[in-house]
Amino acid sequence: MLVEKNPSLAGKSFSIPVVTQALTHGLHLAGKMFLNPGEALLLPDLFWGNYRLLFEVGLEADLHTFNTFRDGGLDLEAFQSALASIPGEKITVLLNFPNNPTGYSPTPEEADQMLAILKAEADRRHVVAFIDDAYFGFVYEDGVYRESLFAKLVDAHENLLAVKLDGPTKEDYVWGWRVGFMTLGIRGGDRPLYESMEAKLGGAIRGSISNVTALGQNLLLQAFQDARYEAEKKRNYAVLKERYQRVRDLLAEHPEYSEAFEALPFNAGYFMCLRVKGTTSEQVRQILLRDYSCGVIAMGNDLLRIAYSSVSADKIETLFANLHAAVKKATST
Amino acid sequence: MLVEKNPSLAGKSFSIPVVTQALTHGLHLAGKMFLNPGEALLLPDLFWGNYRLLFEVGLEADLHTFNTFRDGGLDLEAFQSALASIPGEKITVLLNFPNNPTGYSPTPEEADQMLAILKAEADRRHVVAFIDDAYFGFVYEDGVYRESLFAKLVDAHENLLAVKLDGPTKEDYVWGWRVGFMTLGIRGGDRPLYESMEAKLGGAIRGSISNVTALGQNLLLQAFQDARYEAEKKRNYAVLKERYQRVRDLLAEHPEYSEAFEALPFNAGYFMCLRVKGTTSEQVRQILLRDYSCGVIAMGNDLLRIAYSSVSADKIETLFANLHAAVKKATST
Repeated sequence: MLVEKNPSLAGKSFSIPVVTQALTHGLHLAGKMFLNPGEALLLPDLFWGNYRLLFEVGLEADLHTFNTFRDGGLDLEAFQSALASIPGEKITVLLNFPNNPTGYSPTPEEADQMLAILKAEADRRHVVAFIDDAYFGFVYEDGVYRESLFAKLVDAHENLLAVKLDGPTKEDYVWGWRVGFMTLGIRGGDRPLYESMEAKLGGAIRGSISNVTALGQNLLLQAFQDARYEAEKKRNYAVLKERYQRVRDLLAEHPEYSEAFEALPFNAGYFMCLRVKGTTSEQVRQILLRDYSCGVIAMGNDLLRIAYSSVSADKIETLFANLHAAVKKATST
Repeated sequence: MLVEKNPSLAGKSFSIPVVTQALTHGLHLAGKMFLNPGEALLLPDLFWGNYRLLFEVGLEADLHTFNTFRDGGLDLEAFQSALASIPGEKITVLLNFPNNPTGYSPTPEEADQMLAILKAEADRRHVVAFIDDAYFGFVYEDGVYRESLFAKLVDAHENLLAVKLDGPTKEDYVWGWRVGFMTLGIRGGDRPLYESMEAKLGGAIRGSISNVTALGQNLLLQAFQDARYEAEKKRNYAVLKERYQRVRDLLAEHPEYSEAFEALPFNAGYFMCLRVKGTTSEQVRQILLRDYSCGVIAMGNDLLRIAYSSVSADKIETLFANLHAAVKKATST
């Protein structure tokens, strides 16, 4: 399935996917294996909050961030200069596309630029790239890179270890099943190398949770082998894409929204972010909850994460009308 | 259920049981929370092999052991002198009854002695007791202490933190469901104290595996509420007890076995251990596998762990005849 989903992986060498207790556990294990306490972890400044708990609190990594967006796309200059500014013989980066919280996935050009930046970095020191593919496959626009960055990084450089974390939780809508996968790749990696990593990983799993739920694994295997699987997956994708398109259309139909908020770049995933104007996102969040029974996540000073993926298409108009009204209420008080 | 299973917990104060990704994960979390790298962990010298991976490899604890048995019971003098010999302001012990691998559970007198030893220890320093109750409830003889040691330790001393790890995996025969519980108790512990521990534990779970399988939790909840639960549990217990009794009877009926092996004390759990004579347990294990298609676990130089719990009663005679023959074969070559 890995190669079906990422055709450019064909013929490349990487480890077998090792089963983890869903993607979060894979991230934790990746951190345990490749990130020593005090070592730097670089990621975009818009990131999933649990990364802080996983890597900073849980593993005592030294988190660094770079500015995520510039001019409607990724701020890869910021990525590059952040890399340059962090000392050490080894650097670990964490890349998550489609991204939580922004719902952004890179263009093919941006993906190539990231590859070039990381290859150049690997010329001067060890690079580890954690690739969080939680929202893999949810791309709604043309001109967006559709494979995992793992496919590009897996054979990029002898000094660049690519660690792919993925899972069916979001891809296959099986929340709570708790199954995920970790796959490793490095240019020049051979079976003995991957076998030793797989064994090490197996030991880390045995020594922390014994093993991963048999219920989830068995159900998942049956689902993958079921004749209805592809059609059901396509049908669900169409539902999410319709919701995405509804958000896009609404933003185009309502230029007056721009007085209250602007959308950050988004083209993929489960979420999109709004930057509210003239008030704080926490203020808006509380008004939305109190007056509109509407729950969103406030981040930083002025960002809201909107989980449009879980709102039926016919209610998205109301959601955005509420958002607009709540910001106006917040700014008028 | 905790109080039903351990009546002497009634009226005592302890944390809510926090759901873990089965018992192993609870042990891992207990180690993460209460055992710093380099700190001592004391346990009997006959212990589940995964403890080494969990605590020594995974958490860099300093493992110490004491001699498990003397004169057909626990060697609690060895326990006491091991405690005395380990320096430090804090000591952590790990007690697992019914025990894996030996299938031994303490008598009420031994349980009281352990309580007294740990209370005396708590007079002079901080004591943490990890109580691994994986095989809780599988007691087959009278005169054996039937509750968890947690019930005794939970309010024993202001300096003694009791950490109970349990789960339905073995108790309710749900291998692979991956649900367990961790419960904390200390004399004088109140709600604010337990709440802070529960929150800390919740954060450690969120930051390593996100959450525990919903499949396993939901199924388990339904099973516990099902009218057939008690009867099915009793029926399965009767099956295991019959297997236990068959082993006991065979050992009594075949005095000639004593030339080949002797049984270590056992009265509970899933397993029992044999000490082979005149050869190594690894030698016997290989002969059993090669010539008798019979799998056992070899431990140390001369111990075999026999999982009689998973052998139907009518085949246990063959199992022991094979064991006898394999030892004779090993000693005659």
